[in-house]
Amino acid sequence: MTSAAPGTLVLLRHGQSQWNALNLFTGWHDVDLTELGEQEARAGGEALLEADLLPDVVHTSLQKRAIRTANITLEVMDRIWIPVRRSWRLNERHYGALTGLDKKETVEKYGPEQVHIWRRSYDTPPPALELDDERHPRHDPRYAHLPPDLLPASECLKDVVVRMLPWWYDAIVPDLQAGETVLVAAHGNSLRALVKHLDGISDEDIAELNIPTGIPVRYDLDEHMRAVPVDDFPQRYVGDVEAAMAAAAAVAAQTQTG
Amino acid sequence: MTSAAPGTLVLLRHGQSQWNALNLFTGWHDVDLTELGEQEARAGGEALLEADLLPDVVHTSLQKRAIRTANITLEVMDRIWIPVRRSWRLNERHYGALTGLDKKETVEKYGPEQVHIWRRSYDTPPPALELDDERHPRHDPRYAHLPPDLLPASECLKDVVVRMLPWWYDAIVPDLQAGETVLVAAHGNSLRALVKHLDGISDEDIAELNIPTGIPVRYDLDEHMRAVPVDDFPQRYVGDVEAAMAAAAAVAAQTQTG
Repeated sequence: MTSAAPGTLVLLRHGQSQWNALNLFTGWHDVDLTELGEQEARAGGEALLEADLLPDVVHTSLQKRAIRTANITLEVMDRIWIPVRRSWRLNERHYGALTGLDKKETVEKYGPEQVHIWRRSYDTPPPALELDDERHPRHDPRYAHLPPDLLPASECLKDVVVRMLPWWYDAIVPDLQAGETVLVAAHGNSLRALVKHLDGISDEDIAELNIPTGIPVRYDLDEHMRAVPVDDFPQRYVGDVEAAMAAAAAVAAQTQTG
Repeated sequence: MTSAAPGTLVLLRHGQSQWNALNLFTGWHDVDLTELGEQEARAGGEALLEADLLPDVVHTSLQKRAIRTANITLEVMDRIWIPVRRSWRLNERHYGALTGLDKKETVEKYGPEQVHIWRRSYDTPPPALELDDERHPRHDPRYAHLPPDLLPASECLKDVVVRMLPWWYDAIVPDLQAGETVLVAAHGNSLRALVKHLDGISDEDIAELNIPTGIPVRYDLDEHMRAVPVDDFPQRYVGDVEAAMAAAAAVAAQTQTG
């Protein structure tokens, strides 16, 4: 059996959202981009244009901050005509009962150690939402077609890996196997889940990895659909790597993962 | 065999484009909306919201004036997360060698009768483009995956009916059979082709039918996936029918079909 080289994967984390700006835990709450977030999306499109990395298909979550990032990026590239595929499986991590809480107040209330566990532990989710909580996804029409068993009431990163990977294998990989350049416009944690898989990062080490916002991250894949290794994650950044690293450091300093 | 009632079909013709404003034949040339065109798309979304007609899925052409109309309309409705399906089969009629020509100058050069035939004859296409003409779709990356035989060098409305109907039967009808509300954001002539089919309009009478821009047109369908009849086409308009009829009259007065 022979096969052509797989296509190129480009990950793009959405930029600043309204709740990032307010320092609230966001998760599955559906907030829009700020003006800064829109600027980041345009910058992502310009970097891809300059690198001549033209997406043939785009995958997004069901959340408007990722969808609008994809739309803006593709408008800059004059490629809004490419096929679009969306899935809840690319959504941000569900923050459970922390959704909508102020990050600073949560630290004051529960202490920095507990909040660090909720934010960065691989396998400890935040407290779950009750079914009748209006923040529970069962009350959102976009998830009305999903079996109730699939709807998360809270997620740790491990949960995101488990629910994201079926979309990787069943929807994204076939596009890559067809030789296409695939843009995945998504979120800090759904992309970290994918990067963990592609690069074989351990449960411990993934806590240290931050994906910059608005900076395309390029993956070349081997015949097993795993990442061709690089020395250093920032080598995958498309565009001005110094600016990209400064942006990533800023994200790390804020430890914004929501 | 029993079946549930089919879903609801909503047609939306894009509003003013940059070449509409310049009075040029547009066809497959990919121009963006003007500010007025963006306003029309927002008005369409507001009318649908007010009528509680919420699309479950959207179909668009591969042309940005229709795609952006869909995006803006769905943003107004907070439904940019619905599935999107795009096809060249929903594109505007290809205007052949008239593409990019000034409408008024074309009338002066060829005479009003000839231009009227090119614009409104059911089965006489305008002169075809040569293969090496840069306006021929073979030179556009969005059509690179299509077999060359499918690429039009010029089209009459009959040609549009022939190439549009497979998308109706194979892509839109299954969504309607699933009971969904389906938004089709497209163009004056691809929508006239669909309306001709749904309402069983004759080759002669279709010349008189103008679809207003930015005003959603609602179709309820019978078990044969044909239109449930209405007395008068404007009864299908969603929203302020008087404003809709004034808009349609304005379109008719301009005889803008390109």
